[in-house]
Amino acid sequence: MAKIPPPPEAHHLVVVGAGFAGLQLVRDLQGAGLRITLIDQRNHHLFQPLLYQVATTILATSEIAWPIRRLFRERADVTTLLGQVSGVDPQAKRVLLDDGGTVAYDTLVLATGARHSYFGRDDWEGVAPGLKTLEDATTIRRRLLLAFEQAERETDPIARQALLTFAVIGAGPTGVELAGIIAELAQKILWREFRNIDTREARVLLIEAGARVLAAFPESLSDYAQGALEKLGVKVLFGRPVSDIRADGVTIGTEFVGCRTVVWAAGVAASPAAAWLGIAADRAGRANVDANLNAPGRPEIFVIGDTAAVATSDGKPVPGIAPAAKQQGAHVAKVIRARLAGKPAPAPFRYRHQGNLATIGKSAAVADFGWLRLRGAIAWWIWGIAHIFFLIGARSRVAVAWSWFWTFISGQHSARLITQGRSRVPDRTP
Amino acid sequence: MAKIPPPPEAHHLVVVGAGFAGLQLVRDLQGAGLRITLIDQRNHHLFQPLLYQVATTILATSEIAWPIRRLFRERADVTTLLGQVSGVDPQAKRVLLDDGGTVAYDTLVLATGARHSYFGRDDWEGVAPGLKTLEDATTIRRRLLLAFEQAERETDPIARQALLTFAVIGAGPTGVELAGIIAELAQKILWREFRNIDTREARVLLIEAGARVLAAFPESLSDYAQGALEKLGVKVLFGRPVSDIRADGVTIGTEFVGCRTVVWAAGVAASPAAAWLGIAADRAGRANVDANLNAPGRPEIFVIGDTAAVATSDGKPVPGIAPAAKQQGAHVAKVIRARLAGKPAPAPFRYRHQGNLATIGKSAAVADFGWLRLRGAIAWWIWGIAHIFFLIGARSRVAVAWSWFWTFISGQHSARLITQGRSRVPDRTP
Repeated sequence: MAKIPPPPEAHHLVVVGAGFAGLQLVRDLQGAGLRITLIDQRNHHLFQPLLYQVATTILATSEIAWPIRRLFRERADVTTLLGQVSGVDPQAKRVLLDDGGTVAYDTLVLATGARHSYFGRDDWEGVAPGLKTLEDATTIRRRLLLAFEQAERETDPIARQALLTFAVIGAGPTGVELAGIIAELAQKILWREFRNIDTREARVLLIEAGARVLAAFPESLSDYAQGALEKLGVKVLFGRPVSDIRADGVTIGTEFVGCRTVVWAAGVAASPAAAWLGIAADRAGRANVDANLNAPGRPEIFVIGDTAAVATSDGKPVPGIAPAAKQQGAHVAKVIRARLAGKPAPAPFRYRHQGNLATIGKSAAVADFGWLRLRGAIAWWIWGIAHIFFLIGARSRVAVAWSWFWTFISGQHSARLITQGRSRVPDRTP
Repeated sequence: MAKIPPPPEAHHLVVVGAGFAGLQLVRDLQGAGLRITLIDQRNHHLFQPLLYQVATTILATSEIAWPIRRLFRERADVTTLLGQVSGVDPQAKRVLLDDGGTVAYDTLVLATGARHSYFGRDDWEGVAPGLKTLEDATTIRRRLLLAFEQAERETDPIARQALLTFAVIGAGPTGVELAGIIAELAQKILWREFRNIDTREARVLLIEAGARVLAAFPESLSDYAQGALEKLGVKVLFGRPVSDIRADGVTIGTEFVGCRTVVWAAGVAASPAAAWLGIAADRAGRANVDANLNAPGRPEIFVIGDTAAVATSDGKPVPGIAPAAKQQGAHVAKVIRARLAGKPAPAPFRYRHQGNLATIGKSAAVADFGWLRLRGAIAWWIWGIAHIFFLIGARSRVAVAWSWFWTFISGQHSARLITQGRSRVPDRTP
């Protein structure tokens, strides 16, 4: 090992979750003299803001994911464990793993994120996958591509139309971005390659229960985004919630639409961190924490990122986006450093909103920095450069830049693969 | 569509399989005036010679696979269908699909390849996956990486040793290439990242029933390859076949070795093309064909590539490698063109051996061109440049070159992802 590990009696910090919040925390504690154990149920940190580009065949999985333990290979103070946490025993100060193992801690930070929520209709998950993991992305990619393949062989016009109908539920940034690229695939890329169908006749529905797309943006940018989507051929449906989803279609309000491919981008629920700790949570299941992101009455336990309920200075919930998670990780690193040094706690956590960005297809985007609102090609370039910058390491930056450059100049996507559906080898390992 | 499709009454050629043989055939029939239907059970053509690099975390899946229909998007005469062929009705001149569909043909070419053979022990497949598809590669990649992850958390020394023992069965090019990179991963890349284990203590066993590695190469190159493997820490075991494989280990001859990760690179069997046609096959199941690769008594049916039994001029079987498959595809294209033009058939198919190449880890390789034998760094560079050249399209060439360049200068692999194991979304589509 490159450096000398801290002694076994050093203060032991256990961090659960290597998303944006957990990663920032561990990074900011470099040199703090702690023993750190970082537990995640995946071996990779995932750059979720670009996950929709894996689902829509632009990027490869490995371009937006990095082995967690590689990120900390020079940090002798950090031990990375692949494991599934199933609970916490705050009395015994132990994290419980689903295989029966336990990990003792002096300080615990839960940064376990969120997953999709079907608002009580968990039976929809099988027919309307959400987008949180690499497997979710390759599942959606497979279904998208298979629908076109099956339509090419389908002779019944009704069945064919259902195969060529794609429904995206929820018009937040993820839904808008997915719908935009699916429409582009059908309108601009795939049509030359099929002989029995015209993929330009495909319908892409973006279904939103609320009154507009991108509700977190100013209304002028929502209007622009809607116009840009409609120009790509997306049909945006407002004000009617989805009342049912089945394998053969969705019911929007009372209207049934035949549809074989549905993507869920409508809601998220926090991971069960609050339940593990037995503390109060908000409606989305996010744990209520104090001004330093401590669990109530548990100064040694912090909850950060999408699984914590934190309010902005004007009382609104802090949004579930990467910059917010990173700021919380950085804040808790400061709190822990202050405590270890016997110094007073820093000022309470305060979220600094840096802006909202969303893209619509190949050269339109909206950006809201509060003091500046941008749309169109300029916003799209800012979006692209910012995301290249936020990727980890030169390797990924070059690889993603190359994939985007190639898509831009050739009009072709790099990762149009149907995989996973037919693996014949059963899985022995967990 | 870019060009005008041929009339419906044009001669209808059905090609089953878009591997090297099928792809070459369809390419060489450009402008021949046929209607061509290309059927494959996958949506992508796979560059199998580099598949082991996906299994060993160097390359991403999308770098060595291309959507078949994209390759022929400018060819209005080619219709690509995703479908699983289950048989042929030669009397009715129809291909049968597993979903009950049929496709009529005037001429049929079966280029359905080979898969792994467990020599009658199909129960080994679950514990010793082979390497033929992208899913096979990501399965092996997941198991390799999970073994190290589990070893990091394992406290029992015997179990830990079994987790850190990797067995590759079969010392042909694929087995040699897999064993070399697995050893490099353990010896040179991963050891810095683990805290409870030293991955340099991992054992990589290359198990060969025969007398030497790379039996198709001259003995001097086999010796060199064995030395290069041993320098990387691979333990090469000769002359004892594997008599059993279980989830907890392999039995070599009569000796049981605890081992949790086994990869099968020992044998292939042809696809059931011969059985579909009811014609004779050799021991590996490859269909006996005549000098023009026609099925006996069926001038309208050809069998090419790994599923055809073809002999070289000195009576040995043509090897199951990409250049051989391409030559057969090119030959049958010539035969079909001659027949359509009413000309005499070309001279019988004659295999031209261009050479054998295999790599051992990061900078050793062997090359046998008959008139020239190379080994070491020079062979490795020839191998690399040749494989970049054989990839399809500028996009993949740049992407693979970048991944290799990165691996070379940084010593890091780009695609060290554990995926597929925990997808929660059930698969609705076939």
